[in-house]
Amino acid sequence: MRPVEALSDEALALLDGGWRRIVSEIGIEFLHPRALELFRSAGQRVEDEKVFFDPDFIAEQVALAPSSFTLHARNPARDVVLGGEHMVFVPVQGPPYVRRGDERRVAGIEDFEDFCRIAQALDDFDSAGGLPCEPSDIPVEARHLDCVRALLTLTDKPFQGSQISAIAAADSLALGEIVFGSEALSTRACMYTNVNANSPLRWDDRMLDALLAYAHAGQAVVLTPFLLMGAMSPVSLPAALAQQLAETLTGIALVQLVRPGCPVVMGGFLSATDMQSGAPTFGGPESMLGVLASGQLARQWQLPWRSGGGALTSSPAVDAQAAYEGMATMTAAFMAGANLVLHTGGWLESGLVASFEKLIVDLDIVRTLRGAFTPLEVDEVSLAFDAHLEVGHGGHFFGCAHTMERFRDCFQRPLLATTANFEAWQEAGAPDANTRAGAIWADIVAHAEPPPLDDDVRGAIDAFVERRTVELTGRPPTVREARARVTPVTPPGRTRRRERRAEPAGGESRCRGSQSVLDP
Amino acid sequence: MRPVEALSDEALALLDGGWRRIVSEIGIEFLHPRALELFRSAGQRVEDEKVFFDPDFIAEQVALAPSSFTLHARNPARDVVLGGEHMVFVPVQGPPYVRRGDERRVAGIEDFEDFCRIAQALDDFDSAGGLPCEPSDIPVEARHLDCVRALLTLTDKPFQGSQISAIAAADSLALGEIVFGSEALSTRACMYTNVNANSPLRWDDRMLDALLAYAHAGQAVVLTPFLLMGAMSPVSLPAALAQQLAETLTGIALVQLVRPGCPVVMGGFLSATDMQSGAPTFGGPESMLGVLASGQLARQWQLPWRSGGGALTSSPAVDAQAAYEGMATMTAAFMAGANLVLHTGGWLESGLVASFEKLIVDLDIVRTLRGAFTPLEVDEVSLAFDAHLEVGHGGHFFGCAHTMERFRDCFQRPLLATTANFEAWQEAGAPDANTRAGAIWADIVAHAEPPPLDDDVRGAIDAFVERRTVELTGRPPTVREARARVTPVTPPGRTRRRERRAEPAGGESRCRGSQSVLDP
Repeated sequence: MRPVEALSDEALALLDGGWRRIVSEIGIEFLHPRALELFRSAGQRVEDEKVFFDPDFIAEQVALAPSSFTLHARNPARDVVLGGEHMVFVPVQGPPYVRRGDERRVAGIEDFEDFCRIAQALDDFDSAGGLPCEPSDIPVEARHLDCVRALLTLTDKPFQGSQISAIAAADSLALGEIVFGSEALSTRACMYTNVNANSPLRWDDRMLDALLAYAHAGQAVVLTPFLLMGAMSPVSLPAALAQQLAETLTGIALVQLVRPGCPVVMGGFLSATDMQSGAPTFGGPESMLGVLASGQLARQWQLPWRSGGGALTSSPAVDAQAAYEGMATMTAAFMAGANLVLHTGGWLESGLVASFEKLIVDLDIVRTLRGAFTPLEVDEVSLAFDAHLEVGHGGHFFGCAHTMERFRDCFQRPLLATTANFEAWQEAGAPDANTRAGAIWADIVAHAEPPPLDDDVRGAIDAFVERRTVELTGRPPTVREARARVTPVTPPGRTRRRERRAEPAGGESRCRGSQSVLDP
Repeated sequence: MRPVEALSDEALALLDGGWRRIVSEIGIEFLHPRALELFRSAGQRVEDEKVFFDPDFIAEQVALAPSSFTLHARNPARDVVLGGEHMVFVPVQGPPYVRRGDERRVAGIEDFEDFCRIAQALDDFDSAGGLPCEPSDIPVEARHLDCVRALLTLTDKPFQGSQISAIAAADSLALGEIVFGSEALSTRACMYTNVNANSPLRWDDRMLDALLAYAHAGQAVVLTPFLLMGAMSPVSLPAALAQQLAETLTGIALVQLVRPGCPVVMGGFLSATDMQSGAPTFGGPESMLGVLASGQLARQWQLPWRSGGGALTSSPAVDAQAAYEGMATMTAAFMAGANLVLHTGGWLESGLVASFEKLIVDLDIVRTLRGAFTPLEVDEVSLAFDAHLEVGHGGHFFGCAHTMERFRDCFQRPLLATTANFEAWQEAGAPDANTRAGAIWADIVAHAEPPPLDDDVRGAIDAFVERRTVELTGRPPTVREARARVTPVTPPGRTRRRERRAEPAGGESRCRGSQSVLDP
């Protein structure tokens, strides 16, 4: 279906003037000497770490980016297109905590791997992304190595390279080269990464390290301002949209300066703040309108577009709130024609928690929306005139020929939703959607199988990860870390419970400040 | 925003041919001598109880109906417009059961009254409808009297007259005359009713009794085929849409024969069936597409349109499923520009249960969608350039002047959704959305106040209800029934609990058969 247009032509013109004024009069900070040097060489005015832009220069740079590109997977059957009418779905990214049923704890590599298994097993997902949760049981210096290894061995779908540092970016690219070969890596997008602006109006050194590394390698860069209105942007949505344009367009211009034609994705992540507590809010009207407007702006720029959602929610429980807030942002992504949808499954508690049950809820939502946004085909056969002749007036269609020929697949079967009557549901123990979801994901994980991978490639990946882990941590991987490579496929929620850990300080405030370097 | 178009011009043409073929070649049953006589006199071919139509005759009749009309309330400030870009919201209609928290039981007049109080208290609702639940503690012969009295005394918003019989329709009209006066009643739409086709292709005697009575009185008639694909219609959506057109258009033609220009609403209620159990399913892609397509067809006919949802769900619990299924049909109603939205709050368990908690969930959904479907206004002030000048690079907007001037009302505050962090939420007892909703509705009911009503009018209503109750039941109202008139305003879930009753046989199968005379 045609994407919805939330902005009038007049509104579009005003927003265009808005970002132009910001980048030319206030400027954007780039906390990286190489970025400043590139902009200065291109004729832009640089003062300290601020760049004051000629807006037309930015427009010219952005025009170098492709409007659509193929993101390759190690299994060519899993390649995806980013841009146009295509939608690419990726589960939740970034949470430090994980929830399996009633168990909420700091995430570990086993959780990370299980999200990879689910993303591989289900056609609904086009990629496991780069960080479905933060595996805190792996030393932080070497964590990106175990993450990329899991993505490359437990899935054969496109993956996201790490963006947390120049080292992590280089290692991700090196692992990509092992799998794809240097020839492919130098000529195609074999991975993507997501860099966040440190809004307002700043790109910081770590994000720019990653941006420069991936752009240099010609890999796809998603540029995402992370705006919670009232915190990282003004409280008015038009102001946030103009700011989002200023930040993402200047980031894209930098990528194009490094490597003209490098694939990019215009990113957005725009929601509101609870002005009483300062906590982020998701799934309200501002979130939906923000997504609708952002999509329209990306179409105007003819760029592939990453929507803010995903199925976002502030809810601490997999309850009605989690579902309707999540569906709000996910519906907006469909209405606006998003090309890349991170956080499609599992986002809970403002992104602090990756929930396996929520992932199942989100899948039912995505499947419903996929069906509903597929234009209806009508032909003479589908009018089923003969069925009316057979059934007549006041009859029923359960047993008629038209139904018997089609009953198996005429309607989409939900993954999670029940139609059980009350008595049968009570006899079954009155399991709510959250409870039923637990059984569903455990079954998916239990039956997951890793995709085929050449032994030599697997060996090279392991050797690289081991060597780099020693180099980065000063010691070989521990038994636990080594075991992570051969984790058996079992539902950990059932058989591998471990004690609840103390929560690390600062985790809860991740989304509160304006200095988020984690992936929203 | 402009409504979504799910059907191509070619699809529209095929569907147009579809209903024309049905009404001319298969015909529609009208189980009522007066209806048959009217059609015969108008030159249509009648065989037994089937009418074979000239499709152009139907189109001519339908063209007599207004594309938009005002539905009057006893308080003129509560008048609403049905048609055009207006949306009118009404809570759930028809359930025999009610749920308050963990208590699920047969509904009574106290429940009915509490729904009226909530519909009156909240601006989100434009009407309490006609039957937010079925008050089984009132004798069935006189039930409509107590219902209409509650609607007319506990709310001053537009109301739905009873359609269950000719007697109930006449009494509803008589009560309307007491409140509005005969002059107003004969010249304006002072109430509406909803009649359901007994699909497939049949209008039955009871529904036609009501249709004829309200049309004769010039009151608004909503004509709603109740189609669960696979049961009351073929399993293909195009076939269901053509059938829906055939049924609703012939009903509208009959209304116009009785009284040319009588206000009508093209109704739809279209969902699928679980082909394994025969149970209805709601909120899947077929439901959403059905709503989107129906809205487009109603626009083609330039008629006010009632969408199938509402926030429909099969879920037995107020859980994630209830929320995402409910949001699916409600979102489709917004996307398609529905004019009349029954079942906006409280529908649970395939419509068998009116849930107070679900009503609160649905309100948060409706408020979000209202906001998201309001086009975004952009002007220079909303771009907040000065806020950027004040905050600068990498700062935050919490305390800036732009925020301080607007923080109270810059974002929509949710009714139910929480942004509490996990620790605070746990300390509060980890209340999920369902639990929190219980406290919210109880508070609304506790603070509800009946709208002013002239003592003489109130006395006339009571006298009419008492007289007719004696006439219809052969005895005066019991103490319980009399008490219903003066029920104090308290949250019954807390203070007026009573024992769980046995459930009436057949209640569960209400939505299963093709003979639904209850209001879907």
